[in-house]
Amino acid sequence: MKIKTIESASNAHAYQLLIKDILENSLRVNPKHEIVYKDQVRFDYFELYKRIKQLCNLYVTLGLDGGSVVGVIDYDSHRYLMNYFSVPITGNVLHTINWRLAPEQMLYTINHAEDEVLIVHEDFLPVVEAISDKMTTVKEIIVIRDHKNTVETKLNVKGYFDDLVATSSTEYTFPEFSEEAVATLFYTTGTTGDPKAVYFTHRQLVLHTMVEMSVLSLMNEAFKITSSDVYLPLTPMFHVHAWGLPYVATSLSLKQVYVGKFEPKSFLDIFRKEKPTISHCVPTILNMLLTSPAASDIDFGNWSVLIGGSALSKPLARRAMERGISVVTGYGMSETCPLLTTSYLSLETIQDDLESQLKIRTMTGRAALLVDLKVVNEEGVEVPKDGKTLGEVVVRAPYLTMGYYKDKQKSEELWKGGYLHTGDIAWIDENNDLKIVDRSKDVIKTGGEWMSSLALEDMIGSYPGIVDVAVIGIPDDKWGERPFALVVAKTEVDITEEQLKEHMQTYVDKAVINKWAIPDRFVLVADIPKTSVGKINKKRIRELHENNQF
Amino acid sequence: MKIKTIESASNAHAYQLLIKDILENSLRVNPKHEIVYKDQVRFDYFELYKRIKQLCNLYVTLGLDGGSVVGVIDYDSHRYLMNYFSVPITGNVLHTINWRLAPEQMLYTINHAEDEVLIVHEDFLPVVEAISDKMTTVKEIIVIRDHKNTVETKLNVKGYFDDLVATSSTEYTFPEFSEEAVATLFYTTGTTGDPKAVYFTHRQLVLHTMVEMSVLSLMNEAFKITSSDVYLPLTPMFHVHAWGLPYVATSLSLKQVYVGKFEPKSFLDIFRKEKPTISHCVPTILNMLLTSPAASDIDFGNWSVLIGGSALSKPLARRAMERGISVVTGYGMSETCPLLTTSYLSLETIQDDLESQLKIRTMTGRAALLVDLKVVNEEGVEVPKDGKTLGEVVVRAPYLTMGYYKDKQKSEELWKGGYLHTGDIAWIDENNDLKIVDRSKDVIKTGGEWMSSLALEDMIGSYPGIVDVAVIGIPDDKWGERPFALVVAKTEVDITEEQLKEHMQTYVDKAVINKWAIPDRFVLVADIPKTSVGKINKKRIRELHENNQF
Repeated sequence: MKIKTIESASNAHAYQLLIKDILENSLRVNPKHEIVYKDQVRFDYFELYKRIKQLCNLYVTLGLDGGSVVGVIDYDSHRYLMNYFSVPITGNVLHTINWRLAPEQMLYTINHAEDEVLIVHEDFLPVVEAISDKMTTVKEIIVIRDHKNTVETKLNVKGYFDDLVATSSTEYTFPEFSEEAVATLFYTTGTTGDPKAVYFTHRQLVLHTMVEMSVLSLMNEAFKITSSDVYLPLTPMFHVHAWGLPYVATSLSLKQVYVGKFEPKSFLDIFRKEKPTISHCVPTILNMLLTSPAASDIDFGNWSVLIGGSALSKPLARRAMERGISVVTGYGMSETCPLLTTSYLSLETIQDDLESQLKIRTMTGRAALLVDLKVVNEEGVEVPKDGKTLGEVVVRAPYLTMGYYKDKQKSEELWKGGYLHTGDIAWIDENNDLKIVDRSKDVIKTGGEWMSSLALEDMIGSYPGIVDVAVIGIPDDKWGERPFALVVAKTEVDITEEQLKEHMQTYVDKAVINKWAIPDRFVLVADIPKTSVGKINKKRIRELHENNQF
Repeated sequence: MKIKTIESASNAHAYQLLIKDILENSLRVNPKHEIVYKDQVRFDYFELYKRIKQLCNLYVTLGLDGGSVVGVIDYDSHRYLMNYFSVPITGNVLHTINWRLAPEQMLYTINHAEDEVLIVHEDFLPVVEAISDKMTTVKEIIVIRDHKNTVETKLNVKGYFDDLVATSSTEYTFPEFSEEAVATLFYTTGTTGDPKAVYFTHRQLVLHTMVEMSVLSLMNEAFKITSSDVYLPLTPMFHVHAWGLPYVATSLSLKQVYVGKFEPKSFLDIFRKEKPTISHCVPTILNMLLTSPAASDIDFGNWSVLIGGSALSKPLARRAMERGISVVTGYGMSETCPLLTTSYLSLETIQDDLESQLKIRTMTGRAALLVDLKVVNEEGVEVPKDGKTLGEVVVRAPYLTMGYYKDKQKSEELWKGGYLHTGDIAWIDENNDLKIVDRSKDVIKTGGEWMSSLALEDMIGSYPGIVDVAVIGIPDDKWGERPFALVVAKTEVDITEEQLKEHMQTYVDKAVINKWAIPDRFVLVADIPKTSVGKINKKRIRELHENNQF
């Protein structure tokens, strides 16, 4: 179609959306608010601004004149926050390194990303020492320490981060460049193959920040940022920009609290002292805090927590709400910057009783501003918004990775048909509320219908005496796939396949599932294969099945 | 400098910031909220969405397949709101026509913009009839009526807006196109020459909407939009996108109230009934409401009003605050979309006493998110942030007009040196608080210093018996310029030039001004030349002075 464009004045400034602009705003809001790091460091936004400029100068001095990659291996800290800004502001690329990776994987990411400078907290020096011989691009290593003592290492290091920053010039003019410059990159790890790198531009991060501001303040009644909030992240900063909140918090000059290496006890001390009001974490961390005896006397009544990473269960949400915590679900992934949806409480539903709210708070939620989200069948056609028909979640948004770095084939698969494929299976209802029910590779396709393996596991797991369960789809000539269940029972209990089929029949009778959803086989085993992080390893189960191990 | 870019997957969606995306969000927030037009129309966001799609189809049916200009001449209404969306969403350009212009000027803008379709409220048909013979591009005229009776006109009209919309198909897929497509244009009128056209792209309007969301909710403690707000604009929608708030309000699906032709009485009836909580207007309207006897019983205690167009005076702000209205100043202009600054109350200053707050609320304020604002001297160098040194306000932001349509020379002047020149003279202080003191062409440049003519007028005007005053700078070989004052005194009062000089000397003694600021001459006159809208006509005064009329 035609559009109208008009030529600009020759000197008109073609404004680029750059991360520096997020930072500039912090000095105009509440710049006297503090950035806190454990019980060690606290300073205001004028000091943050100064230190970011000094860190910029350090990178310039190191010869990073744009387009170079800086890898950071650190706990959540004020120093990480500085790097969130200084690295991209100087036109370089921030590689947030996942310190949970095995050393060989970490090495892979450092070489694949072509890191030229590594910023390493001393706790991770042993890992870096172990792989340093095989690092192909790193020229300088800078050490972070939380004290003033000498750090022993066999590495040839440039110096200590704090000292190098403090002795750098405070004079620095933020450069202008294209908003399409890559600002960050990091790796996502699946159960198979090498880690894959996603990457985000300045434009994408500025837009993500603004979308998050609007969604988490103006739209969602259960998670409303205000300028008096105190922000404390509980997800690692190497993980998807810590969900983007450090950029939001800095732009608004909120008080920010960084806890370093996470330990429940020191965290609770910090909680008591700094009184955070907004945080985000995975369900495991929330559960850990709620069950910690040391936390029993803490007043959580002014705390809003965004839960992501995996599904927030109703029982956990209930316990959080009963302690006064306003929990909401956030959904996204490494590929999506990450924010796609939040469970969404409106002016009306925030008035509902606890049980009704729990239902909504544990939903995957509604698409954020500017997020075009659809649930589609295998032909790419949208499924009905009926709250039950399953399909894959596909998205467009102004801040999705445009591919996997140096992996053309996986890039094309990710963006098949012009939408980013999340690999998540969900239904959506008439209110645009989304509920993820499974991963695409785990959903069972039988008789033309999709069935959530997780839902079947929940049903089977509710049978008395079952302690663990895994359901996979196995190939079937007639039905496409058929569900197959592995079951672990309490040692003192006898459970027969027949009993489990009868149990599942009760769900058929209640029309929760249809009869094809009952697994053909239930195999009692001693334990179920898990991944290194404790998730069910369905890939391994499929392999075992193919090899007739059951 | 170097930057890193990474090639996208071939199918990766290069997301464009389009106005349709603002609208899509409305169905995800509180879509049952209402759009209200006077006491005539009310419907929810599902209906708004449907009608916008119908209006899109109407424009498609009329052959507007992108890049065509639609002119709208209407009061503030739900229909205008629909046009804010449907015209740009179909790839066409919305020309918001200023119905306060003289017919010849209105004709000039219609021909200059090349309007193909005119949407005209019946009240403005006589004007259109008077100029229709000279309209060179208009193909269709559609009439808006607030009733069901036949509207008599000699024009050959296509039909009635509501009927044509209602009979259009509700099926429409919002097209994708470049975010650089021009979405709106309109004319700014100075005291000299033809109106000049500014223009804004989809990208600019989406970014403006998001900036306004963040500034007017998260950052400014005195004007905080929430999803329970009721929005009622009190500036005409032809004027700079009604300050952008209709886009903000729609995206958040706030309840919106449109009052049609503004009349204090009917407005107050609507106010009582619909209970608006956020509005924006010029000081004159606020003053009219506060002094209206009919408004004396109204509870304004839940009303926040953004004041712009001209400076909010302390006395007016005080009266508003005493009635419970939270007034803040907004600053911008046609060229800037418009939001540049708002007077800025922080968490601390919102706690201050009334007088301290008034000082801040009547400031021009602080730059909005993403706005790069400087106060510079004639060499383009930033003046000290000392709260007194004057300079011109120049800006960069992602939503400024990139020139004047079809006026290359004025476009280049506007963007001289890569910053948009506002023509406003201001000081800025160490908190980044800006205060506009004069227009560039009116400021008096004497002895190397700049002096606000408005400030001098305030001082002179405070002398007992003075009812009107105008100060201009007149050329002076030695000093560059010297101030010259015209004064109108009450008829029963005798005032001498000597008395006024002595009065001004008291400000010199208090170090408010220096001695060069005292005008060389005070001329008592019967009245002061004004423009058609009641502003002092300094251009005319300069002409009279040049011709030795004083």
